[in-house]
Amino acid sequence: MRLLTLLSDFGVNSPYPAAMKAVVAARVAAQCLDISHAVSRHNVREGAFLLASVVPFCPAGTVHLAVVDPGVGTSRRPLLIQAGGQYFVGPDNGLLMPAARRLGVPQAYHLDPAVGLVPRSATFHGRDLFAPAAARLLLGEPPTRLGHPIDDPVDLVFAPGGWAGEVLSGEVIYVDHFGNLITSIPESTVAPGAAFDLETPQGTRRVRMRATYGSAAPAELTLVAGSEGLLEIAVREGNAAVETGFRAGAPVRLAPSEEHRHNLGR
Amino acid sequence: MRLLTLLSDFGVNSPYPAAMKAVVAARVAAQCLDISHAVSRHNVREGAFLLASVVPFCPAGTVHLAVVDPGVGTSRRPLLIQAGGQYFVGPDNGLLMPAARRLGVPQAYHLDPAVGLVPRSATFHGRDLFAPAAARLLLGEPPTRLGHPIDDPVDLVFAPGGWAGEVLSGEVIYVDHFGNLITSIPESTVAPGAAFDLETPQGTRRVRMRATYGSAAPAELTLVAGSEGLLEIAVREGNAAVETGFRAGAPVRLAPSEEHRHNLGR
Amino acid sequence: MRLLTLLSDFGVNSPYPAAMKAVVAARVAAQCLDISHAVSRHNVREGAFLLASVVPFCPAGTVHLAVVDPGVGTSRRPLLIQAGGQYFVGPDNGLLMPAARRLGVPQAYHLDPAVGLVPRSATFHGRDLFAPAAARLLLGEPPTRLGHPIDDPVDLVFAPGGWAGEVLSGEVIYVDHFGNLITSIPESTVAPGAAFDLETPQGTRRVRMRATYGSAAPAELTLVAGSEGLLEIAVREGNAAVETGFRAGAPVRLAPSEEHRHNLGR
Repeated sequence: MRLLTLLSDFGVNSPYPAAMKAVVAARVAAQCLDISHAVSRHNVREGAFLLASVVPFCPAGTVHLAVVDPGVGTSRRPLLIQAGGQYFVGPDNGLLMPAARRLGVPQAYHLDPAVGLVPRSATFHGRDLFAPAAARLLLGEPPTRLGHPIDDPVDLVFAPGGWAGEVLSGEVIYVDHFGNLITSIPESTVAPGAAFDLETPQGTRRVRMRATYGSAAPAELTLVAGSEGLLEIAVREGNAAVETGFRAGAPVRLAPSEEHRHNLGR
Repeated sequence: MRLLTLLSDFGVNSPYPAAMKAVVAARVAAQCLDISHAVSRHNVREGAFLLASVVPFCPAGTVHLAVVDPGVGTSRRPLLIQAGGQYFVGPDNGLLMPAARRLGVPQAYHLDPAVGLVPRSATFHGRDLFAPAAARLLLGEPPTRLGHPIDDPVDLVFAPGGWAGEVLSGEVIYVDHFGNLITSIPESTVAPGAAFDLETPQGTRRVRMRATYGSAAPAELTLVAGSEGLLEIAVREGNAAVETGFRAGAPVRLAPSEEHRHNLGR
Repeated sequence: MRLLTLLSDFGVNSPYPAAMKAVVAARVAAQCLDISHAVSRHNVREGAFLLASVVPFCPAGTVHLAVVDPGVGTSRRPLLIQAGGQYFVGPDNGLLMPAARRLGVPQAYHLDPAVGLVPRSATFHGRDLFAPAAARLLLGEPPTRLGHPIDDPVDLVFAPGGWAGEVLSGEVIYVDHFGNLITSIPESTVAPGAAFDLETPQGTRRVRMRATYGSAAPAELTLVAGSEGLLEIAVREGNAAVETGFRAGAPVRLAPSEEHRHNLGR
């Protein structure tokens, strides 16, 4: 049985994900896996990050149905992407691209609206167009029968963080349930023990790279290598987002502390 | 593998849906599909609307287990309904009827309590009676072996909206995650472009029927055809519930605007 | 197809449960059943209670993946438990033990870290170690191939409630979505109709044992036999937690009322 993942901004108390799954279940037996339906409303970047965090762990043949779609009912194209043996359906607004690129070179298709239900509502393409398309992919139909290739899908790129001169910079790309701040800075750019001055909306704070949450002192603001290979700002037994005032999208600047410079012999 | 949907007011952080699914899984392999467990507490009308919105998309043989059950432990009957090749189990309080009627002519049965677990708790019939009944339906047992036919199930009818003289009236039957107000007025009663004066709890507002959310101006209060074939009051990139003060159950009155009357030659 | 349950404190809007399920789905076809991902952060007791409430209804061969893991990244051991034909994987902090004991005599194993993904993150053992272990159990591998037996797993015991002299005492072990207070006192210790004086954070209240919620008067603070065989404090059509001020972990003292003593001939 093949795998179908679902991601949307419909909310955790919404019946709309069930409607999409019912449309699929009426056509093909598939295992449904909800990634999240609590993406902030119309927040395409957040949805794109969450989708990209899960796809590397999915088996070949998985179909991803993702709907964060502020442009529904306008001329934005419906999209199908094939990448690395997995498939994506959703709006052409960048949502699917970071995930697809993690798997290989994305091949995009303009999804044929005729694939959808008749009649199709103006407001719920997730159920009326993307779900039927997902079902046909799960049944093994090739993308070429569901649309025509295009080479200009709307793209979305997370600005990579890293050293900019003497300062490590990037942005907060996601705030998780614990208030941990996932940044765009690769963890490999920072050595364990390194200390930095972090500019936060609530003033400058000293932070230090730790091997694990558990090795930080309670309440210590700390840097750790996150599960996505990215630097996270965290507070052991606390909430880094509340403590620093950082929100998703905020720029992050980490200046090596004097102590750190000294240790490096600068 | 047959489909089992679940709906309740247990809350999204409740372990009770899992207990119901475990009881089913111990008896039969079925695909579980949560419609919502965030129905407002004891709000039978809201649960009935959500259930009815999903069942038209479900395949034949689907079993629906729905529990919004303020009368658990009283003399309210346990109910089984067959309609249009699908099955429903839950309390006899109207919850199941609108969904069943969307599929065909409902045949109701008084569910035999002996179908349930022994011992059966006084507070959790979802797990102890409805889940075992759902499992037996999924295994292919006919309703006649699980209860006896009745012709007086408690009914629940959504007052249909429509033209009342010169005014279009109905009620708000659901407020979704985006603050969109789903009304009981069929979309087919309104022509694109038509303008109305809408009486809201926060004063009279001009609204206009739009083909899609996307064709409204940002922040414009607008009418659109919703995914259920019903008129929705929405704000593009905004929250209509917050902006108007409407809540579920509120009456809706739309008076054609002077401009509109003029266009119609009145 | 075998059953996999999942429980965590990751939050209902977290993508992490999906990542764990994807790791499993890439290795074995299993039915996934979420118990709850809304356990209060790092609240091992609450997670343990919820897990224990569901396992008696699960079929033989079920694997439970539970992650409430404040010690991730420290020296706390990764654990595998076999009990009564079901399996558990998660941190060695007591989380799994009450559930395992409900099924039989638990046999614990120190899970071999080599079972996990390479590389393994320091922060997300649920995905990188416990999910691969769960997949191998679902594939039928015996625990002895995934770790070595230990006899000193960290334990967690809910203090049983009951009569202490003339007073019935215990604690609130869980507050559900409706505000019902599930206590550690077995329901069988109380006869229907019995009246007590309950000391609450907001003063002493008279409560009476009722056969069902429905047989209480509206707004009446009442005792009922809960679905777990434990005494619950509830308000019909109301919220007992709000009305009494009780929270999880609070001690409960029920003194038989004078009226009750009189009836008993004391």
